[in-house]
Amino acid sequence: MSERVLRMGMVGGGPGSFIGPVHRRAAELDGRIRLVAGAFSRSPEKSKAAGLSYGIAEDRAYADHRTMLALEALRPDPIDLVAIVTPNDTHFAIARDAMQAGFNVISDKPATATLDEALALEQVVRATGRCYALTYTYTGYPMLREARALIRSGTLGKVRKVAVEYFQGWLADPEELSGNKQAEWRADPARSGIGGSIADIGVHAFNLVEFVSGLRATRLQADLGNVVPGRLLDDDCTLLLRLDNGARGILAVSQIATGERNGLRLRIWGDHGGIDWCHERPDILTLNRADGISEQRHAGWNGLSAAARAGSRLPVGHPEGFIEALANIYGDFANAAHTGGAAGDGLLQGIEEGVRGMALIARAVENNRAASGWSTIDPAA
Amino acid sequence: MSERVLRMGMVGGGPGSFIGPVHRRAAELDGRIRLVAGAFSRSPEKSKAAGLSYGIAEDRAYADHRTMLALEALRPDPIDLVAIVTPNDTHFAIARDAMQAGFNVISDKPATATLDEALALEQVVRATGRCYALTYTYTGYPMLREARALIRSGTLGKVRKVAVEYFQGWLADPEELSGNKQAEWRADPARSGIGGSIADIGVHAFNLVEFVSGLRATRLQADLGNVVPGRLLDDDCTLLLRLDNGARGILAVSQIATGERNGLRLRIWGDHGGIDWCHERPDILTLNRADGISEQRHAGWNGLSAAARAGSRLPVGHPEGFIEALANIYGDFANAAHTGGAAGDGLLQGIEEGVRGMALIARAVENNRAASGWSTIDPAA
Amino acid sequence: MSERVLRMGMVGGGPGSFIGPVHRRAAELDGRIRLVAGAFSRSPEKSKAAGLSYGIAEDRAYADHRTMLALEALRPDPIDLVAIVTPNDTHFAIARDAMQAGFNVISDKPATATLDEALALEQVVRATGRCYALTYTYTGYPMLREARALIRSGTLGKVRKVAVEYFQGWLADPEELSGNKQAEWRADPARSGIGGSIADIGVHAFNLVEFVSGLRATRLQADLGNVVPGRLLDDDCTLLLRLDNGARGILAVSQIATGERNGLRLRIWGDHGGIDWCHERPDILTLNRADGISEQRHAGWNGLSAAARAGSRLPVGHPEGFIEALANIYGDFANAAHTGGAAGDGLLQGIEEGVRGMALIARAVENNRAASGWSTIDPAA
Amino acid sequence: MSERVLRMGMVGGGPGSFIGPVHRRAAELDGRIRLVAGAFSRSPEKSKAAGLSYGIAEDRAYADHRTMLALEALRPDPIDLVAIVTPNDTHFAIARDAMQAGFNVISDKPATATLDEALALEQVVRATGRCYALTYTYTGYPMLREARALIRSGTLGKVRKVAVEYFQGWLADPEELSGNKQAEWRADPARSGIGGSIADIGVHAFNLVEFVSGLRATRLQADLGNVVPGRLLDDDCTLLLRLDNGARGILAVSQIATGERNGLRLRIWGDHGGIDWCHERPDILTLNRADGISEQRHAGWNGLSAAARAGSRLPVGHPEGFIEALANIYGDFANAAHTGGAAGDGLLQGIEEGVRGMALIARAVENNRAASGWSTIDPAA
Repeated sequence: MSERVLRMGMVGGGPGSFIGPVHRRAAELDGRIRLVAGAFSRSPEKSKAAGLSYGIAEDRAYADHRTMLALEALRPDPIDLVAIVTPNDTHFAIARDAMQAGFNVISDKPATATLDEALALEQVVRATGRCYALTYTYTGYPMLREARALIRSGTLGKVRKVAVEYFQGWLADPEELSGNKQAEWRADPARSGIGGSIADIGVHAFNLVEFVSGLRATRLQADLGNVVPGRLLDDDCTLLLRLDNGARGILAVSQIATGERNGLRLRIWGDHGGIDWCHERPDILTLNRADGISEQRHAGWNGLSAAARAGSRLPVGHPEGFIEALANIYGDFANAAHTGGAAGDGLLQGIEEGVRGMALIARAVENNRAASGWSTIDPAA
Repeated sequence: MSERVLRMGMVGGGPGSFIGPVHRRAAELDGRIRLVAGAFSRSPEKSKAAGLSYGIAEDRAYADHRTMLALEALRPDPIDLVAIVTPNDTHFAIARDAMQAGFNVISDKPATATLDEALALEQVVRATGRCYALTYTYTGYPMLREARALIRSGTLGKVRKVAVEYFQGWLADPEELSGNKQAEWRADPARSGIGGSIADIGVHAFNLVEFVSGLRATRLQADLGNVVPGRLLDDDCTLLLRLDNGARGILAVSQIATGERNGLRLRIWGDHGGIDWCHERPDILTLNRADGISEQRHAGWNGLSAAARAGSRLPVGHPEGFIEALANIYGDFANAAHTGGAAGDGLLQGIEEGVRGMALIARAVENNRAASGWSTIDPAA
Repeated sequence: MSERVLRMGMVGGGPGSFIGPVHRRAAELDGRIRLVAGAFSRSPEKSKAAGLSYGIAEDRAYADHRTMLALEALRPDPIDLVAIVTPNDTHFAIARDAMQAGFNVISDKPATATLDEALALEQVVRATGRCYALTYTYTGYPMLREARALIRSGTLGKVRKVAVEYFQGWLADPEELSGNKQAEWRADPARSGIGGSIADIGVHAFNLVEFVSGLRATRLQADLGNVVPGRLLDDDCTLLLRLDNGARGILAVSQIATGERNGLRLRIWGDHGGIDWCHERPDILTLNRADGISEQRHAGWNGLSAAARAGSRLPVGHPEGFIEALANIYGDFANAAHTGGAAGDGLLQGIEEGVRGMALIARAVENNRAASGWSTIDPAA
Repeated sequence: MSERVLRMGMVGGGPGSFIGPVHRRAAELDGRIRLVAGAFSRSPEKSKAAGLSYGIAEDRAYADHRTMLALEALRPDPIDLVAIVTPNDTHFAIARDAMQAGFNVISDKPATATLDEALALEQVVRATGRCYALTYTYTGYPMLREARALIRSGTLGKVRKVAVEYFQGWLADPEELSGNKQAEWRADPARSGIGGSIADIGVHAFNLVEFVSGLRATRLQADLGNVVPGRLLDDDCTLLLRLDNGARGILAVSQIATGERNGLRLRIWGDHGGIDWCHERPDILTLNRADGISEQRHAGWNGLSAAARAGSRLPVGHPEGFIEALANIYGDFANAAHTGGAAGDGLLQGIEEGVRGMALIARAVENNRAASGWSTIDPAA
């Protein structure tokens, strides 16, 4: 009850940003974190305008992250954490600078723009001992936490097969040429890195496989395509996976799946049953039992695991969504920040998962280019 | 951008309350309203404890609503609005006192505990000129606003038939005897009034019919039952309705529908098509066209009506839920408060709808008792 | 194995008929019955043409049912049963004549055109001792048989509430004026009787309530409307029901629900759980358990009741539909015919259910006209 | 109308067979084909018993297919076609013998046990000029025919991506060791050939991709697993595909997906829209339009393509299933037989598709073993 409210500074999220206000809402939803500062834009005027729209003090809307870190450190009430919601190419420097300045960091995925950066950031996390987490938002959904708990408790038996898909259609046309800012930076290797759809949504899917199954993917075969003519990065990506217990996996993502919205689905089968979860109905987890009955469990239900119950704010039958899922991650982060970084229970996705995501991108791009069978995913390889 | 943040005081929502934190989250979600005061409990200690949990100043956690109104009025930064989240029997006095003290009021439904109170409150609203709104949360869902817009624009043609259902199972057992506080006050005529399920969820369903169809219900036949032995108020309720354009309606609600969660569904058929919306998937509206094709429209889609688009914070495919729907109502209320009460576009449900809800309860209980054909719903009758 | 194949004569089902070929397919599906004769049309030429299309011998395509009955009786290989697929006004005479001539009868619903006829037919059934059954097709779906078995076995506990709905949109326009033969006779009181939608689909819904719940409806309040201007019979019908154990019911049917196809849904709640079945996915039965889990059971699953298992021809996951459901009823009829009329297990819907359906129509029309509270449904009243 | 009813002889389908009665029902459903003879089992007694259960004359239940072919040829009313429903290893010889004896052949898939046999059978088809078709049952579903028509008419634009999945769980345990005859022959390389799940269900999925898209798959990467310990053939199979217009494909099938029933789903995306079809709801085709609206079209709807309309026997809203889909293929076969083999419209899947299926199996097994990037699928390679 008497827990201190954590103060947050944001980097990115300037005027017109979609993701800045979402993070603001999620961070503040449960009253444990409050946005008080930000370097919202490289333009001082835009940063001030954004700060005004977020209701923060004028002198805490900074024009760049280094100024924010320096000036906040001098305040009696400095920020406790830095939220990074900028394009991929800037993640590394901001996260590194913030942690070296003593601040905790919560960052949009992917961790960095390259695997090398990710490995370097891993060193920074270790050296500084700061809390570092990635907002893999889907891991915040209660029913995926329930799925994870079911697998941990052995309900599915040995995991044998995983299928994850993430289909969007919004890049079926060359949106990056039409002034769509979201599409522009994603389609630009200088800002996105070497991965297109695999970096944008593939790492979400990959992270979910590992988060929910509790397994690590060790090998892959990749089929990446730049389907829309002229596009410089992949917009369609399928991977065959092998997990560390021998289970087989399929990871299929696309951003040229015309007419699809945001179709994320995860299915995992063990020798005792299977689970099925779709983002379209995030509050339901289907458990297909080996005896032939399909069970549907709902968010907010009393019979869920503790981890899943903790992720709902409302009684069963009252939908919660994406913002609430992200708020759960901010809540885990607040827990970690209060306890000095002990992440607790593995719910929070940190630099290890960040490095794995970057390794996935690097290995998939290489494998697709070579087109010669299986490659290892090992980040250190 | 430079809009002033409105300050809110809450009545109710003390320790252990479910609904208080939900309203706090919804009111603050978009950064336009901030909870700064409250009379959270009749116990001064509990009110302070709740205030602390909400992060508000100690001296603004009051022990009763009258003290709050009096002391806030003396501050240089008084509250702008009062949110009422108490049991039904207290709504009237709090709303009346608040408006008479010059504050705007946003209140949980039903408006009051009796029709007479509602009619009296209507006079207070008129006399004071304050903004008064009810948090009929479902009216905040973007796809119900889309349904309303489709009907207004004539897409369905003349409305002929309406079917609304709201099925819950949580009162299938005598929960009110087991220490469940939510069940206790709802099952207690002294705190709930003469209606049980009809007052708790029936008025929601009724309000949706009128909100979405743009029609008024004029007559009813009612079948109310106290199904669980010993229960003093109805826990199951079906109404036959007639709307003012001659359309027929069915309103079916139950709280003893074992195994149901919160199954609200609205269907409306005109001579050119029908719409179908379920709370289980609030981001979808199905339009069953007369030519035989079923269309699904999704929240966040660019092609929606302005009213529906304004209700989404995220792109299509990213679920939003109950808190976001309630936040839309708080947003409409903020609009009304800033513009001095001009409610704009009829989205906000005010005292007229509050009176109608109370008339529905009164007429249904009378009709059920008499069991003699059709009754008028007219509040003035 | 060595069971004799039953020979069937059909009355109705002439050229252009939809329902004749459906009954032919269903009757013959399992190889236990074979269509060998018919009075397919009152026109001798049309009857012959239809007979040819069914592949039956030319001399067994008769011009009226009396000739068929008379001539078949003289053959060494006469028909065993008569299937009646004509408009409602002819059911009584054909069924009576057939049974009095010693033949078993399987008839489309409703049993007759009036309650008086139904009561008279009941006498004929008793007097002749023939097998008589109605093709209430929905009772043939395996998962409704599973629902019935679950209720019989006490899985739901005491039934408290029933909701059945049947929404179609195909009569949203005055189809009867556009040359649609299906619409013409249904909208014509001379051929349909006093009920429109209630006789066409309402009795299906009513029969399902009683079939699955094992209860009898005792009282009703009715709201019948002739919604399409100029229509002589009801095209929209809602009933409030009371069952003989005190349970409450809602029966809602409409044929002006624009854009709906054939939306039959049955839900029943007991104090231990609820079941939910939709015709759109006939191979699934949802059991909403009191503990909060929703179970889905599928047709063809080994764990189903014997009655449900017997209704599937294919393994789980292979859809069966309307023809197969009707074939199950023909199968039950074959069983009854072979065993001399012992209907076995109550699956077959006979003259008692036929009389109840006609009583429903009569009482609903009366109650709607009087608009004065509850009426008894008792056929004998 | 006066079309002659075709006479069918069946090979396989003996006592206890599941598939024999299904084919009998489907073949006879529309009254155009009649089962009159069969070599149902290698045991003369069992063949006679089965014949009796099918209601055919005792002297037309033969003990082997050669005898059937020889004796039927001598009759004045010989069979017109031979239906083959035996395990894979016998398909080739029966089909070859039947066609060489002058009979038309309709065979269960896969065409043969090896690619070499399939290529040899292709020569027989050409040499004899007989009608030869495979019962790829799913191609008979009206809404897949609608999908095919939509793609042909350009509604989706250029096909870019295909995803087909077929998940079953019934072989999650070593059923072949428990006396399950269906599992035994499928798990036995001597009877099944070199493919397990890929031959049993993978070729169905592959065929659907080509049937609906109108494209040919040219290359693959394969990941086949024998997941259940001790199993000799693959029970899990994922393929990456490339189609002849450059489109990418994913084919994922499994028989160890615990708790799944028969989960076949096909999605195809073009640059103008996408289609989505699931076997769980075979009467619905979803068209995800590029403008963001999802359309659902239903079997039996008047607005469907001619090919789809012809595949329904009932009005919209009346479910048809697997038997009806198979009946559509028998209907196409009857058309082809009556017109002397001109298959019409490409609906019927013949020896070319049979050869392609066998090539798929061969290439996938080779590619999986080599694990070295892409392989060509060309049957002639």
